[in-house]
Amino acid sequence: MNLLNGERLVLGTCYYPEHWKEELWREDLTRMLETGIEVIRIAEFAWSKIEPSEGVFTYEFFDRFLDVVEETEMKVIFCTPTATPPAWLTDKYPEVLNVSKEGVVYRHGQRRHYNYNAPVYRELCARITEKSAAHYGGRKCIIGWQIDNEINCEKDEFYSASDTTAFRTFLQDKYGTLEQLNEAWGTVFWNQTYTAWEEIYVPRPTYGDATNPHEVLDYMRFVSASARGFAKLQSDILRRYCKPGDFITTNGIFGNLDNHAMRAESLDFMTYDSYPNFAYVMDAYDEADTMKDRKWSRNLSEVRSISPIFGIMEQQSGANGWNTGMAAPTPRPGQITLWTMQSVAHGADFVSYFRWRTCTFGTEIYWHGILDYSGRDNRRIREIRQIHERLQKMQGISGSRYEAEVGVLCDYDNLWDARLDVWHRSVEEASKKALFQAMQHSHTPFDYVYLTKDRRAEELKKYKVLFYPHATMISEERAGLLKEYVADGGILVVGCRSGYKDMNGKCVMDHLPGLLAEVTGTDIPEYSFIAPDAGEVFVDWDGIKMRARVFADLLEPLSQDAKVEASYVSDYYAGSGALISNSYGKGKAYYYGSAFDEESAGIFLQKLGVARPYGEIVALPEACEIAVREKEGRKFMFILNYGKEAVTIELRREMTDLESGKRVSGKKELTGYGVMVLCME
Amino acid sequence: MNLLNGERLVLGTCYYPEHWKEELWREDLTRMLETGIEVIRIAEFAWSKIEPSEGVFTYEFFDRFLDVVEETEMKVIFCTPTATPPAWLTDKYPEVLNVSKEGVVYRHGQRRHYNYNAPVYRELCARITEKSAAHYGGRKCIIGWQIDNEINCEKDEFYSASDTTAFRTFLQDKYGTLEQLNEAWGTVFWNQTYTAWEEIYVPRPTYGDATNPHEVLDYMRFVSASARGFAKLQSDILRRYCKPGDFITTNGIFGNLDNHAMRAESLDFMTYDSYPNFAYVMDAYDEADTMKDRKWSRNLSEVRSISPIFGIMEQQSGANGWNTGMAAPTPRPGQITLWTMQSVAHGADFVSYFRWRTCTFGTEIYWHGILDYSGRDNRRIREIRQIHERLQKMQGISGSRYEAEVGVLCDYDNLWDARLDVWHRSVEEASKKALFQAMQHSHTPFDYVYLTKDRRAEELKKYKVLFYPHATMISEERAGLLKEYVADGGILVVGCRSGYKDMNGKCVMDHLPGLLAEVTGTDIPEYSFIAPDAGEVFVDWDGIKMRARVFADLLEPLSQDAKVEASYVSDYYAGSGALISNSYGKGKAYYYGSAFDEESAGIFLQKLGVARPYGEIVALPEACEIAVREKEGRKFMFILNYGKEAVTIELRREMTDLESGKRVSGKKELTGYGVMVLCME
Amino acid sequence: MNLLNGERLVLGTCYYPEHWKEELWREDLTRMLETGIEVIRIAEFAWSKIEPSEGVFTYEFFDRFLDVVEETEMKVIFCTPTATPPAWLTDKYPEVLNVSKEGVVYRHGQRRHYNYNAPVYRELCARITEKSAAHYGGRKCIIGWQIDNEINCEKDEFYSASDTTAFRTFLQDKYGTLEQLNEAWGTVFWNQTYTAWEEIYVPRPTYGDATNPHEVLDYMRFVSASARGFAKLQSDILRRYCKPGDFITTNGIFGNLDNHAMRAESLDFMTYDSYPNFAYVMDAYDEADTMKDRKWSRNLSEVRSISPIFGIMEQQSGANGWNTGMAAPTPRPGQITLWTMQSVAHGADFVSYFRWRTCTFGTEIYWHGILDYSGRDNRRIREIRQIHERLQKMQGISGSRYEAEVGVLCDYDNLWDARLDVWHRSVEEASKKALFQAMQHSHTPFDYVYLTKDRRAEELKKYKVLFYPHATMISEERAGLLKEYVADGGILVVGCRSGYKDMNGKCVMDHLPGLLAEVTGTDIPEYSFIAPDAGEVFVDWDGIKMRARVFADLLEPLSQDAKVEASYVSDYYAGSGALISNSYGKGKAYYYGSAFDEESAGIFLQKLGVARPYGEIVALPEACEIAVREKEGRKFMFILNYGKEAVTIELRREMTDLESGKRVSGKKELTGYGVMVLCME
Repeated sequence: MNLLNGERLVLGTCYYPEHWKEELWREDLTRMLETGIEVIRIAEFAWSKIEPSEGVFTYEFFDRFLDVVEETEMKVIFCTPTATPPAWLTDKYPEVLNVSKEGVVYRHGQRRHYNYNAPVYRELCARITEKSAAHYGGRKCIIGWQIDNEINCEKDEFYSASDTTAFRTFLQDKYGTLEQLNEAWGTVFWNQTYTAWEEIYVPRPTYGDATNPHEVLDYMRFVSASARGFAKLQSDILRRYCKPGDFITTNGIFGNLDNHAMRAESLDFMTYDSYPNFAYVMDAYDEADTMKDRKWSRNLSEVRSISPIFGIMEQQSGANGWNTGMAAPTPRPGQITLWTMQSVAHGADFVSYFRWRTCTFGTEIYWHGILDYSGRDNRRIREIRQIHERLQKMQGISGSRYEAEVGVLCDYDNLWDARLDVWHRSVEEASKKALFQAMQHSHTPFDYVYLTKDRRAEELKKYKVLFYPHATMISEERAGLLKEYVADGGILVVGCRSGYKDMNGKCVMDHLPGLLAEVTGTDIPEYSFIAPDAGEVFVDWDGIKMRARVFADLLEPLSQDAKVEASYVSDYYAGSGALISNSYGKGKAYYYGSAFDEESAGIFLQKLGVARPYGEIVALPEACEIAVREKEGRKFMFILNYGKEAVTIELRREMTDLESGKRVSGKKELTGYGVMVLCME
Repeated sequence: MNLLNGERLVLGTCYYPEHWKEELWREDLTRMLETGIEVIRIAEFAWSKIEPSEGVFTYEFFDRFLDVVEETEMKVIFCTPTATPPAWLTDKYPEVLNVSKEGVVYRHGQRRHYNYNAPVYRELCARITEKSAAHYGGRKCIIGWQIDNEINCEKDEFYSASDTTAFRTFLQDKYGTLEQLNEAWGTVFWNQTYTAWEEIYVPRPTYGDATNPHEVLDYMRFVSASARGFAKLQSDILRRYCKPGDFITTNGIFGNLDNHAMRAESLDFMTYDSYPNFAYVMDAYDEADTMKDRKWSRNLSEVRSISPIFGIMEQQSGANGWNTGMAAPTPRPGQITLWTMQSVAHGADFVSYFRWRTCTFGTEIYWHGILDYSGRDNRRIREIRQIHERLQKMQGISGSRYEAEVGVLCDYDNLWDARLDVWHRSVEEASKKALFQAMQHSHTPFDYVYLTKDRRAEELKKYKVLFYPHATMISEERAGLLKEYVADGGILVVGCRSGYKDMNGKCVMDHLPGLLAEVTGTDIPEYSFIAPDAGEVFVDWDGIKMRARVFADLLEPLSQDAKVEASYVSDYYAGSGALISNSYGKGKAYYYGSAFDEESAGIFLQKLGVARPYGEIVALPEACEIAVREKEGRKFMFILNYGKEAVTIELRREMTDLESGKRVSGKKELTGYGVMVLCME
Repeated sequence: MNLLNGERLVLGTCYYPEHWKEELWREDLTRMLETGIEVIRIAEFAWSKIEPSEGVFTYEFFDRFLDVVEETEMKVIFCTPTATPPAWLTDKYPEVLNVSKEGVVYRHGQRRHYNYNAPVYRELCARITEKSAAHYGGRKCIIGWQIDNEINCEKDEFYSASDTTAFRTFLQDKYGTLEQLNEAWGTVFWNQTYTAWEEIYVPRPTYGDATNPHEVLDYMRFVSASARGFAKLQSDILRRYCKPGDFITTNGIFGNLDNHAMRAESLDFMTYDSYPNFAYVMDAYDEADTMKDRKWSRNLSEVRSISPIFGIMEQQSGANGWNTGMAAPTPRPGQITLWTMQSVAHGADFVSYFRWRTCTFGTEIYWHGILDYSGRDNRRIREIRQIHERLQKMQGISGSRYEAEVGVLCDYDNLWDARLDVWHRSVEEASKKALFQAMQHSHTPFDYVYLTKDRRAEELKKYKVLFYPHATMISEERAGLLKEYVADGGILVVGCRSGYKDMNGKCVMDHLPGLLAEVTGTDIPEYSFIAPDAGEVFVDWDGIKMRARVFADLLEPLSQDAKVEASYVSDYYAGSGALISNSYGKGKAYYYGSAFDEESAGIFLQKLGVARPYGEIVALPEACEIAVREKEGRKFMFILNYGKEAVTIELRREMTDLESGKRVSGKKELTGYGVMVLCME
């Protein structure tokens, strides 16, 4: 593969030849190359440039453009243009449009307003994909293809008539008979029993938007399957036409979509669109948030869980905003560098800036690119030139992999269940955030580890500790995997509300935590939300007080091997077990009866001996993130300062600063937004 | 009647045989009986179990279940299943569905998504009711019937085409001619004049949702009439088939419904669904609210105004919540007892817990019953067993009636008018809440007294004082009733904004307070909202300062018998009359020019000599409620502690503690959530 | 013209003969005349009184009324009744109704629920207008006509099918070809390119309501053109029938409407509906707002920009509110006088109170008139009698014109662009408010000056200083006008974000501020929102610190004549230019890189020597507004006290108090809400 091949760190940008006078093309390409930009992505919204009216195909525009490109060294990622169907298409075939649950049809003018299941849209998308791939696929400047743009962005729910038809087929495939469906969905509740497939629809308006939760869970799985099927439709065509070595990808990570499965089925690797400046959008800014743009490290860890080495298809390079919303400042001097290095630190070997020139018309006039409207040289392009120079000194990093001893287990079933289920969601959100922040503040790198269908216990082994914060829904297979991991010496930590649902989202008529009782050695005779009049509720763990959050499972040990490690000391459940450890095989499982906050998560990391793994090598203030990438024994340490102010860091071991090429150690100043990359040898 | 017959206090529970494996039935029933539960309610959402497809009736399921029941002592309340029409029904006859004002159809999956006026739904409901009653009516275990479930819950507005048709008929019956309707609605305003009945609709979308207020008031009356008609349709059928002595009821109190008339026409008594834990739902919790779960005493007083002795069809027994919303904690130890006793104190002789087992599927997986998902014995079932034991010692209470010297007058016309009219609403809400809190905090029991069509002055006589906080709309009949009450020695207190509307909601072209001028001896030459820049506005009543709230009528006495008792001392209306008393016959009427707050309401109670009627018998802290039930001269005093902490109460007279059977007096500790029931002899 | 003819200040009221028994008419008219009210406005909602069913015309009702009127001295403004179509009309022709963007049809019962483009509505409106004008036009009591009522009030967006059809025609007229439209709208962005006119609609639902901003801007222009066309349709008919000297007007100023063009095309002058009490509506009250009811001076300045001398068709005379919303207190004693004088001070020679009697039915039962429901004499009618007496002593003022040295430039293009564009809006709103408040607090009268199509530089000359706070969109013509003004000696101040858009709302591919670079001598190499984490950002102007608000353009001088007057002293842009002055011809232009706050606006006024122009004549506390009207050399000074409390003012020169007729000077007390009118001679 000609990108992410472990040879070089590469910069790119997004370019829209259709937005500019042709006279500008050559100048722009030359200037990009001078800036260190070697790859452009094009054509993702340009359907009408290839099929201006139904069935009429014209390739001249991009032919002309690619001719100019091929006079330079520039490489191209070509996109299928299916995210924005032409006006003639949606006007003639309104059935291709997405519809709100209440029946409002989303119309032409925005993007992604289509649904995945209208047969005519699938047909027309297949055709434009095939025509584009057949015509442009052989071009030597092209190195890869992007499918559509930001799949499931804007809206990740679909309520058209085509979706209802496809949903019925999906359910027939899954359940075979209505009897099985009625049983799986518990339709006997509120007399929902279905007597014909035609009585079933995608979720429709109900009072308070409450409908069968098991149906809704299946509906989310259906949406994911639809999106994946749409990507695969295109991927299968592209594979037939693209040159050997050319890759297929898509960009961004959005809701109701099993990105892991999509990657496995249709993509060579994942790319992400990284806009940390969203943390500074006026209306969304939260002064008290200690993470802000650092939260994007969480997103980048998600991407890495899909593709250990990945690309950034759109990296912030200016202020962001639409004319209808979002008001974000221009990145401060140094922030573009910081955010680029944040991407690289987490595993990006390709970083493409969005976008070359700022569009002068349309909804995105405030979504700034590298250049402003005038195209004049500016501070931001100068900063990107410096980034390019800096990356030249770090090329050895490419192909290296992010290093972590701690894993946080995830799965799409619980993710989607927590989306609808407010009880589940409230613990999920609290703990996910707490764990991330505790690991950031204690400089503990971690991975998200998705329990995908093919996940093997062996793959879990590399983690000393695995957190599975709230394994609300659990299957026999997953419980088995966890048992194997622990039995084999792993340390597993689960939080409250684990194991009370089956894979349909139905509660188990069993002592809790159900399928997790054995490995955790825990029984839960009683449980409750922490009442709003309870004040602060604490747990005592060998004299350390942790605050119980959101929920309280009151625990009892199930066996000899299980031990009450900590108990509640507040409210009426004072004295009840709050944390149980269970020796299981060579390892240990912990059941914590509450949700995590940052402090308790930090105590767990400390107690389990995984906090601060590079503490002997480097001492960092809280404002800094650490990341280590490893390749064939060579390790590269990234230290990123998210703060405006300079900080002092202490290198407790001599290492090589990749920028200066010098050996460094001792106390060093890192400027505001400063990044240091060290070779640890 | 076999329940509420003044012989015994009875416990029940809600059971859903269709939710559980048949093997569990016998075990569940036996365990209920062991817990002290003697009655179950069943079948209210089970239409498909009796009519699985249109016109096909099958009785086997409930026959099997009732056979098992009849092998035990358990008694059954059987329900008509009309709250949840089957999927085949709503799919075939979508005209039975309710529709939002904007035209969104509410679909299958929730409950109560039907309208009362679709002829086909009325037909199918009549048929299922008749079939059920005919088949099961003779069963000996059945003691009564519940119609539908929570009439007007979820949504109390209906906008289907069937509703428009029925609304036209309703209006033709009421007005006869369009001329009369145009006059009654003041359609000359904004050129609304109707020239054909077909031009009239239930309220439809308008700018800012503003439409003719007199039409909307009639629309609310129409909704109430529709709901009542729907209940009567079923009640008439049930009466034909149920065994002699079997009762008919329905459960819950909801909006836009004249429950008093419904009771009179169709029900033997009212039952209520009592969920005081709503006060502790996370998002709704208000720390500053001094009432919290004690507010349910206000609701229970409303129920009592309909049925002096009533049942609780659903009494909270666990955490509540839906998967889509509401996150409430598990009741703390003692709260189930407290809330049960709250119900009994206010007049409930039957208390049925919702529900036996917590459902493991569907929207209500978090609406906990007595048992959790596993069905294991738990703290809550143990508490209910204790409640049962306690009630055994209090059986003499059954049939006794709540005692009150103070009444608060209500009527549906003003209730519905205040719902739409923000000026009316703002005084109504402030005063209703203030009066309730003042009476709770001063330990002054009170009744709500509805001015129903057949209300006689004689029935009002038992109250020393009647508050009619804001009799905005008043009729000649009601004004006459009040005059009779006062002339006969009663004390009447009305607040600001009284008497300015007629029964169509049109303002009277008269000196205010219109029809209430004579009895109150009051004239109102000027009035205003208390301006937001006015600061605090006070009234001086013989040296006592009360804060005027929301509105200020500036008063002048009309006659010799009228006396300015208090005047404003703030803002430009300083010096104007704020309270006028008028001697009228043997009694006295007060016109207070503002809305009440808790403090001023308390001053009225004090000044009128009705505060703390049991003050010589018992001294209580604010956290406690007092209630007294009386039967044939025997009085039972309930003292309920809503606080978490223990309090000291002082019994100033020796009484019998029904729990211990001992005579008690002097200072006693009442535990947090504790309840003491004393026989006052 | 028989009103606003420079001869007399006249009082009027709004009267609804159709709301009252005919017996009341004579009494009401007599009482009005006794109160000093000489003009009534009638019939604006009375379509059905003239055309009770389609095509049936009956004139008896208003004939009878006008007969009674003509027995008195009362004069009449007659209205076309098109704001409220009859029930028979909207029921038969639902296509005349307005529709929400989502497709919800706005129905009968409110007002203005029609669209301007349904051919049948235009036809029926033309007919009722012609019939009314033909029949009543010759009546001697009639002095003028009002078209419709509050055009574009309630809703200023229209989404019916008729609007789409008319929008296409509007666009064909504007652009001729689809190619030109595609170019103007930048439809190449997001593949929006149109290939047939039928693919174009008024804005429709899209994700996040984001659609092409250039289309939306044209849509707003289209709405304005539609409303203007609707007014002209009626005006043209009225002109044919009304008596010589009778005027045509309409009332109120609402959104998406070029009132200046409408006035020029169709009206003799503008009238305004002034309700300063909205500042005291409960939910809207903002204690911290230093302007409150004084904000209406801003609105009155807007009206004055259309008609230098104007009328108030509806002047607040009581509490305001609808039954569905708004709860405002009764005006305090003195406030009706204050608000009336506020109108007169700004240029109103006719003030008509809304309304004579308070309606006793319909949505507006709480929109109080002079009289309450009973019609009894009250405090407010007494206050209006006093106003009348006072005006008798001030008749010399009529025909005089408001005096100002400062102008604030406005144009509808930027107004409408800022409505949709959140970046534009955020600076626009901040600065407009700041300038108004700074001028009020520094007692600096100002005019709004709209850059209408026919505006000549000569007209600008009378202003020493012109602010054009954020001339985001600018045309060659307008830039030329500004150059001419400055070259001729004027001082122009523009704020940040000026000149970056063309008249289609597309950004210019040019160095900023684009067309304003020359006159301002300014270059903007970089710009940003002031980041939410930036804290307070300051600008230093010769030692004076001003706070930069919302946005920061970083400035550099373009030429020798340009001078950096002030620089940023905070954040990373410390040292960059914040204010540049440029000598241009005989004048000077200033480019300020940020939005104004009240303090910085005040500093500009001070530095440019235009603050406090009457400072040598009078010294006023902040609570007072000053206004001066001039006529043939005679000047009248209004001093208005918006505060509740009395204040001391100092007359530094002897002047004549028009109320007492005496010469006054030195320190004087002005009561709370007090108004002093002085002849400055």
